[in-house]
Amino acid sequence: MSVGKSVPRVDAYDKVTGRAKYTDDMVEKNALVGKVMHSTIANGWVKSMDISEAEKIPGVVKILTCMDVPDIQFPTAGHPWSTDASHQDVMDRKLLNRRVRLYGDDIAAVIAEDEVAASRAIKAIRVEYEQYEHVLDPYEAMKEGASQLHDEYPNNILKHSGFEDGDFEEAIKEEGLIRVEGTYETPIVQHCHIEPPVSYCYMENGRYVVVASTQIPHIVRRVVGQALGISWGKVRVVKPYIGGGFGNKQDVLYEPLNAYMCQQVGGRLVKLEISREETFYATRVRHAMTFNIVSYVRPSGRIVASQCKVVSNQGAYASHGHSVVSKSMTSFRQLYNYEKACKVEGYTVYTNTAAAGAMRGYGTPQSVFAIESHAEDIANTLGMDPLEYRRMNMMPVGYTDPFSKNVNYFDSLNQCISRARKAIDYDQKRKLYQEQTGPVRRGIGMALLWYNTAVWPISLEVSSCRMVLNQDGSVQIQLAETEIGQGADTAFAQMAADTLGIPFEKINTISTQDTDVTPFGLGAYASRQTYVGGMAVKKTAVLLKQKILDYAHEMTRMLPEDIDLVDGNIVWKTNKNKILLSLEDLAQEAFYSMEHAQHITAEATAQCKSNAYSLGCAFAEVEVDIPLGKVTLLNLVNVHDCGQLINPQLAKMQVHGGMSMAIGYGLSERLMYDEKTGKPLNDNLLDYKLSTTMDHPDLSADFVENYEPTSAYGTKALGEPPAVPGAPAIRNAILNATGVAINKLPMNPHLLYPAFRDAGLI
Amino acid sequence: MSVGKSVPRVDAYDKVTGRAKYTDDMVEKNALVGKVMHSTIANGWVKSMDISEAEKIPGVVKILTCMDVPDIQFPTAGHPWSTDASHQDVMDRKLLNRRVRLYGDDIAAVIAEDEVAASRAIKAIRVEYEQYEHVLDPYEAMKEGASQLHDEYPNNILKHSGFEDGDFEEAIKEEGLIRVEGTYETPIVQHCHIEPPVSYCYMENGRYVVVASTQIPHIVRRVVGQALGISWGKVRVVKPYIGGGFGNKQDVLYEPLNAYMCQQVGGRLVKLEISREETFYATRVRHAMTFNIVSYVRPSGRIVASQCKVVSNQGAYASHGHSVVSKSMTSFRQLYNYEKACKVEGYTVYTNTAAAGAMRGYGTPQSVFAIESHAEDIANTLGMDPLEYRRMNMMPVGYTDPFSKNVNYFDSLNQCISRARKAIDYDQKRKLYQEQTGPVRRGIGMALLWYNTAVWPISLEVSSCRMVLNQDGSVQIQLAETEIGQGADTAFAQMAADTLGIPFEKINTISTQDTDVTPFGLGAYASRQTYVGGMAVKKTAVLLKQKILDYAHEMTRMLPEDIDLVDGNIVWKTNKNKILLSLEDLAQEAFYSMEHAQHITAEATAQCKSNAYSLGCAFAEVEVDIPLGKVTLLNLVNVHDCGQLINPQLAKMQVHGGMSMAIGYGLSERLMYDEKTGKPLNDNLLDYKLSTTMDHPDLSADFVENYEPTSAYGTKALGEPPAVPGAPAIRNAILNATGVAINKLPMNPHLLYPAFRDAGLI
Repeated sequence: MSVGKSVPRVDAYDKVTGRAKYTDDMVEKNALVGKVMHSTIANGWVKSMDISEAEKIPGVVKILTCMDVPDIQFPTAGHPWSTDASHQDVMDRKLLNRRVRLYGDDIAAVIAEDEVAASRAIKAIRVEYEQYEHVLDPYEAMKEGASQLHDEYPNNILKHSGFEDGDFEEAIKEEGLIRVEGTYETPIVQHCHIEPPVSYCYMENGRYVVVASTQIPHIVRRVVGQALGISWGKVRVVKPYIGGGFGNKQDVLYEPLNAYMCQQVGGRLVKLEISREETFYATRVRHAMTFNIVSYVRPSGRIVASQCKVVSNQGAYASHGHSVVSKSMTSFRQLYNYEKACKVEGYTVYTNTAAAGAMRGYGTPQSVFAIESHAEDIANTLGMDPLEYRRMNMMPVGYTDPFSKNVNYFDSLNQCISRARKAIDYDQKRKLYQEQTGPVRRGIGMALLWYNTAVWPISLEVSSCRMVLNQDGSVQIQLAETEIGQGADTAFAQMAADTLGIPFEKINTISTQDTDVTPFGLGAYASRQTYVGGMAVKKTAVLLKQKILDYAHEMTRMLPEDIDLVDGNIVWKTNKNKILLSLEDLAQEAFYSMEHAQHITAEATAQCKSNAYSLGCAFAEVEVDIPLGKVTLLNLVNVHDCGQLINPQLAKMQVHGGMSMAIGYGLSERLMYDEKTGKPLNDNLLDYKLSTTMDHPDLSADFVENYEPTSAYGTKALGEPPAVPGAPAIRNAILNATGVAINKLPMNPHLLYPAFRDAGLI
Repeated sequence: MSVGKSVPRVDAYDKVTGRAKYTDDMVEKNALVGKVMHSTIANGWVKSMDISEAEKIPGVVKILTCMDVPDIQFPTAGHPWSTDASHQDVMDRKLLNRRVRLYGDDIAAVIAEDEVAASRAIKAIRVEYEQYEHVLDPYEAMKEGASQLHDEYPNNILKHSGFEDGDFEEAIKEEGLIRVEGTYETPIVQHCHIEPPVSYCYMENGRYVVVASTQIPHIVRRVVGQALGISWGKVRVVKPYIGGGFGNKQDVLYEPLNAYMCQQVGGRLVKLEISREETFYATRVRHAMTFNIVSYVRPSGRIVASQCKVVSNQGAYASHGHSVVSKSMTSFRQLYNYEKACKVEGYTVYTNTAAAGAMRGYGTPQSVFAIESHAEDIANTLGMDPLEYRRMNMMPVGYTDPFSKNVNYFDSLNQCISRARKAIDYDQKRKLYQEQTGPVRRGIGMALLWYNTAVWPISLEVSSCRMVLNQDGSVQIQLAETEIGQGADTAFAQMAADTLGIPFEKINTISTQDTDVTPFGLGAYASRQTYVGGMAVKKTAVLLKQKILDYAHEMTRMLPEDIDLVDGNIVWKTNKNKILLSLEDLAQEAFYSMEHAQHITAEATAQCKSNAYSLGCAFAEVEVDIPLGKVTLLNLVNVHDCGQLINPQLAKMQVHGGMSMAIGYGLSERLMYDEKTGKPLNDNLLDYKLSTTMDHPDLSADFVENYEPTSAYGTKALGEPPAVPGAPAIRNAILNATGVAINKLPMNPHLLYPAFRDAGLI
């Protein structure tokens, strides 16, 4: 068997040697170059544009302005689509926007023979704006009289929703309850994938071919069709290797504009590459959210009722809209088990900042920071050990979600806690750090993690797979579930090898998706690849194997029911060592038989109707230099139960990557805006403090493997969860070290110094 | 219905605008360039090679010589492959050949950063040969003491075969028979496709990706695997648009060497482009054949017995080997119906000339020239009208081939003759041209055509197809049967549209084959595309339609059995005007249903076990300037019965192209060799007299449409037949004009002047 083994990733060699082809590697020599012009105001209206000077620049082929584009509003969220209009994503932007809603909005585009001509043209375009007052803060944006970004959404509220389990007001009447309140704030951060968004488009037989660095080729196809107002089948999307996405490329960013540019030059190939700077203000970011939580607990530690109000900064455009804050709200309800009542409401609010979309964790890095900071605060208020408090109140085994019917089958949280606690020597250090004095102190803290795999039943979960047998008994597998660096191609190959009964080396995963020929699937998001994609692989492999055994029946004297395919050979079921025929010989006959020639292939669609919980925790140990307000992370341990590990080595790397993101989220990352102009202040990797290996301790990733019964290969979400619990664990470690509760991210010196000063530590 | 209509070809716009991408358009900017070094002797042995100077040239990356290549002999013929060793193609060459067998044999290859460095390196390589006497003529080659090209084949005879229907010696004893003998010679000609062979290769995940201008991607995959001694599944072949092939690209020419070059530079992308000059001596040509025919006829005109001996010049390597002359021999047996006996034998003989392979007609342009010249000679000997003679003796309705069981269902030959005769006003002109004198005379003549579609039962005939439904109800179709300019993509789209019941515009034919994902099929040859490919299209379309109707059952209240798909809508069978649902709405539901999501696709393999006769004729009218020995073609009329026409306009163009080739074959084309050196004398388009529109009269193509019952869409071979009957028709017209029978091609002044002089006309 190959599942469970750390086989080397199928694309390792090509990626290490630089041989792997990414979008930009494939662009033709004679490509035209596109460039986007962005607004230099944060809120307003383009009164007029003068492109006459720009058009004169040699090499400029065509200039498109927000006055020219079709009057079509389209959605950009990487959601599967729904035939039910009420479940469709918000359509609130055009290819280019005359109504400017953020500093850096797309107002024009230049197509030129080269980079330089394009840049010069953009500088030469004269714009006259009508400027409105901008609003960067969602609370301000909701106030009467604040500038309205989208007329259809009064007070800039994209959506307000909530739910109440039990009766909160009634519940808190209980005698002797202790009230704990906290407000927790998370910042705007950006994905910072290595490869910025890039695409190119050309026309072929009257159809648009878009080659793009995307997580979601089939969804890009749909959205390009919508944005240009053309039949979706007229669009073909090809997805080569990509250099990371983390959710930013789960939005349809510039592919529609690229296709439109191509159309406007008669179908010539136009390449559109987005700069690093543009990724910060003109692509997507993670929602900044503020949580106000009021909880009522018994002195014993049992939590009785809790109320959470969350306000999410959506930025200028809806992107994934309210669904991100919805996941935050769900996690609040589920990570802890409130004896009597849980009341949650959330607001998604437009502001004149970068549009927020999907980013690794999809609302849970924010909510878990709040929930786990708050849990720590409750435990401290009660003078209770934080682990004890959590054990008493966290999601119990057997919990069933009223909406999704999702069941918590295992005692994962306790198992993960025990393992991490031991790994980091929690109990010893807890004692050790009790009575510290002096400017430099150490602390240890932890946080739980809640996540649920894929998006059913909120929306469609489906994956299709095709397998093709070769003359030598090797097999191609095709899925729309994309390799984005996480190792999906390798995992799928391992799964296929095991279910088919052929060696791993004989599986060729077709890494490039092409919507014309790749079976329909939704792509990479919601940590769904191995879970949902795995279902399609298994279903298809079973089909292919049956066809192989049926053909073997013609070549052996055995019934298909009495033979099996093991390690690339047709064998007796009664004695698997008895080789009747190699798959290679069978394939040769099937391809070239004068009696019965058949190309043996199989294709199937698997619809997923479950969404397993993926639980875990992080433990952090820090050293805090109080006078400097500086935190050094000494230790970070993540333990996850993501079910059966398909490839332990890849799983570990996946966790390390997530931990790195959590460290940046906790200690250094934040996209800042100038209040006066609404202009981003640190839209580059020099000023935006992305966490690097220099900021990391040795990262320790461990696992609890409860085979997930709802999963084709026992696995569940691991893509996003690792990025979630790190920040609150660090926050709780700082609290443990200094006694100061920091309720805002990132916990950098700008924030810590005044906090320590106010606490009288300095 | 779309079949039978002259819809515009799907690739017309892109090809006319230059937007269509051919292999060379897709090569990466940083590609390495390969060049082949060819021998400068016609027969011998490479004693040594000095590459030291060449290696010093800046930009040279690697030089490979015939001493380095793996000791593997491989076949190049574009045949499907057989698991039965005795039916496999001859393996008589290596990637580079140390044993030199023709002037221009491949003895070394250079990989360089650019064209110039590669060319300079080739000039700088010093070669020491051991030279043998060369032999260009097959009769000479068969003689004792002639140089032996391949040790395994004594007297250079690759193969000698024959058959005898009835007893020839017995049959000719009949009293009063008239004996007619003739010897007919055809020249070496080259395909002269617009795009010379070109390919590039790079490695991906340990596999070889070969992008090539080929007619037969799946066969190239197999042969590259054989040539390099690697598992076939390790090879992936991609075939973009190609600029013609005519059979030359039904051989695996330089793809294996290209893959080997790529391997030798660590998998870097290497491009290998073959020059026009190289195509003449180093790719393939049409076999020069000599036929000696002796016939015995009754004064009444009935042919009693005939004997044919054919010797075919194979050139230096086997390529398609004896199968070409075998088709010639089959046509001899079948075009005419010998009352008592038919005896045929053929020799395929190696010589030190360009390797002969498949070329439009596959042996029939040669044999039909001989057979139809001979038929004319018999008629003239008997003083009988040539049409009468043919009508009396040609293949009768109901004829069944003893071997293939192929039946001649219709009176196609008579129908074609009548139509052509009328079109060219044969009877009038026959009379008109009876009593001519003077230096310039006119004449009219004709020839029949015999061809049988595809290659069953000689070898495997199979095609697979896959169809993929899009969200807008459009459909992709994939086949391995390649578009090579003939319009296959368009024909397949028409077929699919009709069988599915959706508009032609809604079909997207995937023109690019990719052996990793394209269903297995054999490619473009033997005029098999619409016949064999059509079977796969129909079988798959029926499957897809059934899946669509099954899904419609979930959306309507109707049984699948009671509804139909017509013009893109689900309708009642009882009233096809009653639209229940559009296919687009069905597709949207199938893609996005929360209850039952399914990507509707279908895939099937069709094995063909028939090979319909494709018959026809050509009538030609010429004016001969006797003193100049110059022929002007005044009129050429082809009439074909290729069954139902899929696309009349495309069919007509196909015929025009074939007629043009026939004109060159008849009047001007011949690849010549220098007897002394064995060096080709006119290996370029200046000295090689390809026929051009300047040499053409208005070409007239007409059809008789007998729906072919063995065919999925009633169609049969039309790709090759048009190239066949023209030359003998012109020959018979010259005979009619001058009374001089020319038994050799091409009939250019070099040949005609002495012939007219010997006949006393000058």
